[in-house]
Amino acid sequence: MRPSGRQTNEMRPVTIETGVTMHAEGSCLIKCGNTHVLCTATIDERVPPFLKNSGLGWVTAEYGMLPRATNTRMRREAKNGQSGRTQEIQRLIGRSLRAGVDRVALGERQIVVDCDVIQADGGTRCASITGGWVALKLAVQKLMKAGDVVADPLVDPVAAISCGIYAGQEVLDLDYPEDSEAGVDGNFVMTGGKLIEVQMSAEGSTFTRAQMDGLLDLAEKGVAELTQAQLTAVS
Amino acid sequence: MRPSGRQTNEMRPVTIETGVTMHAEGSCLIKCGNTHVLCTATIDERVPPFLKNSGLGWVTAEYGMLPRATNTRMRREAKNGQSGRTQEIQRLIGRSLRAGVDRVALGERQIVVDCDVIQADGGTRCASITGGWVALKLAVQKLMKAGDVVADPLVDPVAAISCGIYAGQEVLDLDYPEDSEAGVDGNFVMTGGKLIEVQMSAEGSTFTRAQMDGLLDLAEKGVAELTQAQLTAVS
Amino acid sequence: MRPSGRQTNEMRPVTIETGVTMHAEGSCLIKCGNTHVLCTATIDERVPPFLKNSGLGWVTAEYGMLPRATNTRMRREAKNGQSGRTQEIQRLIGRSLRAGVDRVALGERQIVVDCDVIQADGGTRCASITGGWVALKLAVQKLMKAGDVVADPLVDPVAAISCGIYAGQEVLDLDYPEDSEAGVDGNFVMTGGKLIEVQMSAEGSTFTRAQMDGLLDLAEKGVAELTQAQLTAVS
Amino acid sequence: MRPSGRQTNEMRPVTIETGVTMHAEGSCLIKCGNTHVLCTATIDERVPPFLKNSGLGWVTAEYGMLPRATNTRMRREAKNGQSGRTQEIQRLIGRSLRAGVDRVALGERQIVVDCDVIQADGGTRCASITGGWVALKLAVQKLMKAGDVVADPLVDPVAAISCGIYAGQEVLDLDYPEDSEAGVDGNFVMTGGKLIEVQMSAEGSTFTRAQMDGLLDLAEKGVAELTQAQLTAVS
Amino acid sequence: MRPSGRQTNEMRPVTIETGVTMHAEGSCLIKCGNTHVLCTATIDERVPPFLKNSGLGWVTAEYGMLPRATNTRMRREAKNGQSGRTQEIQRLIGRSLRAGVDRVALGERQIVVDCDVIQADGGTRCASITGGWVALKLAVQKLMKAGDVVADPLVDPVAAISCGIYAGQEVLDLDYPEDSEAGVDGNFVMTGGKLIEVQMSAEGSTFTRAQMDGLLDLAEKGVAELTQAQLTAVS
Amino acid sequence: MRPSGRQTNEMRPVTIETGVTMHAEGSCLIKCGNTHVLCTATIDERVPPFLKNSGLGWVTAEYGMLPRATNTRMRREAKNGQSGRTQEIQRLIGRSLRAGVDRVALGERQIVVDCDVIQADGGTRCASITGGWVALKLAVQKLMKAGDVVADPLVDPVAAISCGIYAGQEVLDLDYPEDSEAGVDGNFVMTGGKLIEVQMSAEGSTFTRAQMDGLLDLAEKGVAELTQAQLTAVS
Repeated sequence: MRPSGRQTNEMRPVTIETGVTMHAEGSCLIKCGNTHVLCTATIDERVPPFLKNSGLGWVTAEYGMLPRATNTRMRREAKNGQSGRTQEIQRLIGRSLRAGVDRVALGERQIVVDCDVIQADGGTRCASITGGWVALKLAVQKLMKAGDVVADPLVDPVAAISCGIYAGQEVLDLDYPEDSEAGVDGNFVMTGGKLIEVQMSAEGSTFTRAQMDGLLDLAEKGVAELTQAQLTAVS
Repeated sequence: MRPSGRQTNEMRPVTIETGVTMHAEGSCLIKCGNTHVLCTATIDERVPPFLKNSGLGWVTAEYGMLPRATNTRMRREAKNGQSGRTQEIQRLIGRSLRAGVDRVALGERQIVVDCDVIQADGGTRCASITGGWVALKLAVQKLMKAGDVVADPLVDPVAAISCGIYAGQEVLDLDYPEDSEAGVDGNFVMTGGKLIEVQMSAEGSTFTRAQMDGLLDLAEKGVAELTQAQLTAVS
Repeated sequence: MRPSGRQTNEMRPVTIETGVTMHAEGSCLIKCGNTHVLCTATIDERVPPFLKNSGLGWVTAEYGMLPRATNTRMRREAKNGQSGRTQEIQRLIGRSLRAGVDRVALGERQIVVDCDVIQADGGTRCASITGGWVALKLAVQKLMKAGDVVADPLVDPVAAISCGIYAGQEVLDLDYPEDSEAGVDGNFVMTGGKLIEVQMSAEGSTFTRAQMDGLLDLAEKGVAELTQAQLTAVS
Repeated sequence: MRPSGRQTNEMRPVTIETGVTMHAEGSCLIKCGNTHVLCTATIDERVPPFLKNSGLGWVTAEYGMLPRATNTRMRREAKNGQSGRTQEIQRLIGRSLRAGVDRVALGERQIVVDCDVIQADGGTRCASITGGWVALKLAVQKLMKAGDVVADPLVDPVAAISCGIYAGQEVLDLDYPEDSEAGVDGNFVMTGGKLIEVQMSAEGSTFTRAQMDGLLDLAEKGVAELTQAQLTAVS
Repeated sequence: MRPSGRQTNEMRPVTIETGVTMHAEGSCLIKCGNTHVLCTATIDERVPPFLKNSGLGWVTAEYGMLPRATNTRMRREAKNGQSGRTQEIQRLIGRSLRAGVDRVALGERQIVVDCDVIQADGGTRCASITGGWVALKLAVQKLMKAGDVVADPLVDPVAAISCGIYAGQEVLDLDYPEDSEAGVDGNFVMTGGKLIEVQMSAEGSTFTRAQMDGLLDLAEKGVAELTQAQLTAVS
Repeated sequence: MRPSGRQTNEMRPVTIETGVTMHAEGSCLIKCGNTHVLCTATIDERVPPFLKNSGLGWVTAEYGMLPRATNTRMRREAKNGQSGRTQEIQRLIGRSLRAGVDRVALGERQIVVDCDVIQADGGTRCASITGGWVALKLAVQKLMKAGDVVADPLVDPVAAISCGIYAGQEVLDLDYPEDSEAGVDGNFVMTGGKLIEVQMSAEGSTFTRAQMDGLLDLAEKGVAELTQAQLTAVS
């Protein structure tokens, strides 16, 4: 009944390849079905001005999409400036990753996570968070190996998944054909079995608390699978 | 225990004054405690290009804050462009209001809702949605009185409220001192007893499903009170 | 003969309500007929770079209009940048207010006056100057009460009024219907019975020195009345 | 007593060389002392959208300064956008030139006057208006020679001059050393013995009506001389 | 003697993988040593305005670099606008590809080639041209298979290589360590044994015609090898 | 056979007038036929950040065109930002001039060369380089006269000329009618008989090494004549 033939609670296949670029301190290419995101983490020993001499670290994220990552070519943001949607997504990624960081343990430095969508088929913000955490973890491992960080500031992985109501059914991990039709969809960011961020939105529709609970059940299942893939990738 | 001395499930006083500007087709000044937002609705007989000849109406929103609406003066957005936060908020307002509109009944025209924060003390996006709906309703009443719209495209009010976990307790309707300390906060948009949008976010923290349920209970109580104020204002 | 039925030398009713926002160091809502401007003054202990260590203070102004302050909705400047007209007006407001300030007595600090038009019906720049001076004065009174400023840097009020030639007659205090038809109009900024700024402009027309004198006579009358209202407001 | 040794009512030498560029329909290089402005007029058979099918013509102006036209190099506006000052000046030039045009006689076409300051020594906006009118007239003569315009839409020259109070004295045609010291200065635009625009401004000072009259007397003398130079140039 | 141990006339290994994205009409990932560029070609049935109803086709290119494609993270162009260097490169790519296209045979449509650098180690503009031609060719093959284009508008491949004088020696295919030290470098674009574009540049140095000839000899060798790789990739 | 009647190896008449502006430390107006460029050199005792405390000087250039320097009026770059073409040209001018400067001898200061095209008829970038060197030299002479620079950092003049293939023939110094028709054109920057920069480009065409040699022969002849004019101008 889903365009892809998946079960309602079935994820797309997930692979996370690490060490994909020679320059970044941490990097991975995450593939959630046909959604492919290149994530890199850059260590910067300077923090933003508001954290100077605070002893606290910072993690921030930027997000982009190659113009032809999508079915129809989008205008290049370098020529037109970042859209509101892009800014909203990169704020979410940064906030989500920070929620899983012990900023005292990280020490006064910044890590910038770049998430660039190479190919899009729905769920790019969730894939960015999940893959972004892997890149971040790899960069932190490098800092720890060098002795620059002693206690691991990243304990549990941060992962994210979308769920929605498609053709009247609650389904896990929307791909683009589902996402563009779903009356209700949500993004769920979790770490260590708890929630960091919930964003549910109805377009021309509404939803009940019971439906919301159904989607949360699906999200918990999905995040558990993603977390497994993340731990495998960074070990 | 709350800075304001309110009960955990107690809203700030809400007043909605209508007809506050001479030019707009619909307008109100909503005060949620010390948060004051001026909302105007402008009828535009032209729709955006993607709706031309579709027979469908459109509702969109813009949001702004006067530079000294806040405790510290902010830079004027007209000089610096809209921030990511501003764009994110106005996208939310527009999406929320549209969820409560029958776009066929509205007919092929656009209503632009402007929400400008005169004074801020937390919860400006929620007040904008709640007040924005009142301005929108008044503009639609004008269209109906003129016979330009026959069936009312706005049935149930759309209202929004924030809740959060402050000092370990679930509280309703955060003011600025609470909002800036809360580890978890959420915005809940509802109509006719159902949900339109849920945005919950933890900053340097996490939350459980039980906590989420607690906040939803509070939100339902708050939205019921707001809806009452909206109906009084527009009748 | 005037659309409003006023005498040629009759001002619109003026009211100045002070203390209208909880955050600003000085604030007022000035109403000149249907033109309503919210003015706030913000004290900033840092001066612009060119005045560092000069011992001199600075006063500057910014001006804006809510999108639906006007009969037809204007595009929001935060989305499109400040127009040339807006910049010209805020330069005028700042220059006018500075002319009435003893910058040595003010001391090395800056006061930013924000003038935001809530509702427009002609004469917004003049109302901004007149109301802006009140907000400025209230902020300075706060500095003096705290002992941060000893000698009052603001002696005489600065006030402004527009006059023009409408339907062949010299009239005082143009409202929008007059302003949009007037072939000649002028803005006159005065303090202590002297002139600070005169801006007279003909659109598709010309004027004589005799007409100019007639408008100056009207302006002196108007400014005298405004000054009275200012002094009442700040005492 | 003036830095240049001129009498208080003495202009700088004015020369207007026409036909200085091979491409423009009208052009001149106006020199008011050491202030040199290149003015070109471009005929465009299309009018701005708001005049389509109105039968009315339009004249508009743009103003610029070469980065090293001034004593200290200014940042290039092409890299930083037009300043508020630049926009204010070009709006003044356009408004002034339009005041001297019979837009019905011009017919539905636009003439764009570009005024680019090659070397600046005070009074660039006045020189731009005076020289801009010459370029405009030459372009119109071309239209009339070709039979595209029948009745001359430009009757009297439009010219502008600055006056100010320097070292306590009313002086005509301020150069830069005077302009940067003057407490009061004004720009006066006239045509056919009447006024089009008066802009008087005090910086940290005030002025009386008597002083204003004194400056107007000087301006009338100056404009008469400029008008003579304009008529010689275009005949 | 070269940092990489290569002979002076030895290229880095080149691989061109085609069909790397699911959405684009043509795509490849070209790797010239550690320089990796993702090239996509998008067919657009609309041409730019200046070609409407001309019967002629158009090929244009855009170029970008992921922020961490380089050793040090660069600021994201979507936040800061395209740099002069980026614009210069994408103009070169477009001009080079157009030189190898029969625009009549292509018919009135546009193909946009996006070249996005995933990893940079010198020579990114040359790799973009070489890979861009492959993506373009694949898109054209699709048009021909569909019968939308009959005669092949692309006869000979267009390829580009850099050469330079490093440590006093003429060397082929500069990598980043060489490029950053070379006093003279050049980019050579060729097709069918002829030249399309030569850009030679000395930084703090000069070069003779004999040295220029030496670099051209190297470039011819390099382009021959690239052409072979291109033909293999598209067949 | 050339539109101008010139021989294939014949330059347009060149004149270089120095000292044309009162403010700049060095200036000239170079006329290459109908192409007229005003070049000024500004000495700035501060260097860009990346050279602080390096002891090295810097030379940079900016380029602009008056809107009606061309046959059809161009949009003013101050209103629209610098085009890619403009940025490409000013980067070339700066790079070319720097190649002829001994940056140690210049000392830690910056010279900014502004090249503004007053009238364009092809070859504006070459005229800018040739005239820009003269302005630069004059500014350096001023520094040497003042004893601020001891050893002359400018030995041989830097000059540039365009050549191209027009109507099948290799011609020297393209004017606009030739430039807009030429299938191949090139810009050649030289100093002391050696090359600094070669930019050859075919639009919808290709060229052979033999043709390239032919153009280089022409360029050498042209540069020799320009060098003579430069030396005359600065002595």
